[in-house]
Amino acid sequence: MADPIDFYFDFSSPYGYLAAQRIDDLGARHGRQVVWRPFLLGVVFKTTGSEALLGVPMKGAYSAHDLQRSARRIGVPLIMPATFPFMSVAASRAFYALCDEDPQGAKKLAKALFHTAFGKGGDIGSAAAVIAVAESVGLDGEALGRALQDPAIKERLKAEVQAAIDAGVFGSPFFIVEGEPFWGHDRLAHLEEWLKTGGW
Amino acid sequence: MADPIDFYFDFSSPYGYLAAQRIDDLGARHGRQVVWRPFLLGVVFKTTGSEALLGVPMKGAYSAHDLQRSARRIGVPLIMPATFPFMSVAASRAFYALCDEDPQGAKKLAKALFHTAFGKGGDIGSAAAVIAVAESVGLDGEALGRALQDPAIKERLKAEVQAAIDAGVFGSPFFIVEGEPFWGHDRLAHLEEWLKTGGW
Repeated sequence: MADPIDFYFDFSSPYGYLAAQRIDDLGARHGRQVVWRPFLLGVVFKTTGSEALLGVPMKGAYSAHDLQRSARRIGVPLIMPATFPFMSVAASRAFYALCDEDPQGAKKLAKALFHTAFGKGGDIGSAAAVIAVAESVGLDGEALGRALQDPAIKERLKAEVQAAIDAGVFGSPFFIVEGEPFWGHDRLAHLEEWLKTGGW
Repeated sequence: MADPIDFYFDFSSPYGYLAAQRIDDLGARHGRQVVWRPFLLGVVFKTTGSEALLGVPMKGAYSAHDLQRSARRIGVPLIMPATFPFMSVAASRAFYALCDEDPQGAKKLAKALFHTAFGKGGDIGSAAAVIAVAESVGLDGEALGRALQDPAIKERLKAEVQAAIDAGVFGSPFFIVEGEPFWGHDRLAHLEEWLKTGGW
């Protein structure tokens, strides 16, 4: 089996949401599994001294426009949540609470969370909101509620964020395959060409 | 005649250099003239609070890698100048000194300056270096040397930088056609699709 594609994203990243609609199909076209790896962009921004794109003068207005244009281009609905940016800690912990024992359930939850946040402009910022989304796709909300309080899960997310930083990840979405890094939804074309050609 | 494409760039921007290799052909494919508009990214960064990509922790290393990968992908040589970032004031003034009376000469100079800086890793940071490049492509170096001291040319560049900011330009390269903004070398595909389809 060929190496998987590591797909790093923050649940509060709208370009991450767009990439999430496409990355599994892209991987499948080239016989690659995709490992979803949510992390916390805010922690990384402390390292890079960056800040959320949409909050930057001039860039923010352009990005809001570019996001909608990029979404329309790939035929994906994009409705920004009323509260933005929002905390993605609960969503990320919920993912890691599931992903070892039920990787398909974790991915299903991640897709539902993204859909709620950016497909419908809803709220996924709190533990209660994340649990409600989990239950809406048939997952065990009560068990998830307990897991979100579990110190081991909190530590797991910290370790995953550190692993992302150690891998050189500084933005969302970010892809790494066989050591080759690709940053941004707009690098999916390069990533696909890389997989198709073996690199250049 | 259809509206032209405004091509905003800073002479010290390597992604601007990559875009400069492609934008005229792209315009020609869609019956569009391309108006080259050098500006000073450093002035804009004071507005947006941004800083040069290559100087940012983590992002810098990735960008150095992505630049070379992007250059190889389009078959363009890319050698970073020993001094980087460098001052692009003289290069920009030289362009505006020529562009009204000799637009083809101005574009020829711009291409030669980019080629010296990033195709050969040479120096275009000083007035003397810019004049040498101009003479190497058959332009009148003495007249250009006088123009670079002309207060009217200095004011012209200031006005062009302000016009870029007023148009919403905050990065290099940046393209605007019929009011539609596209930021980044990696948005050329969107720009071309936009011209082909009339937008979406």
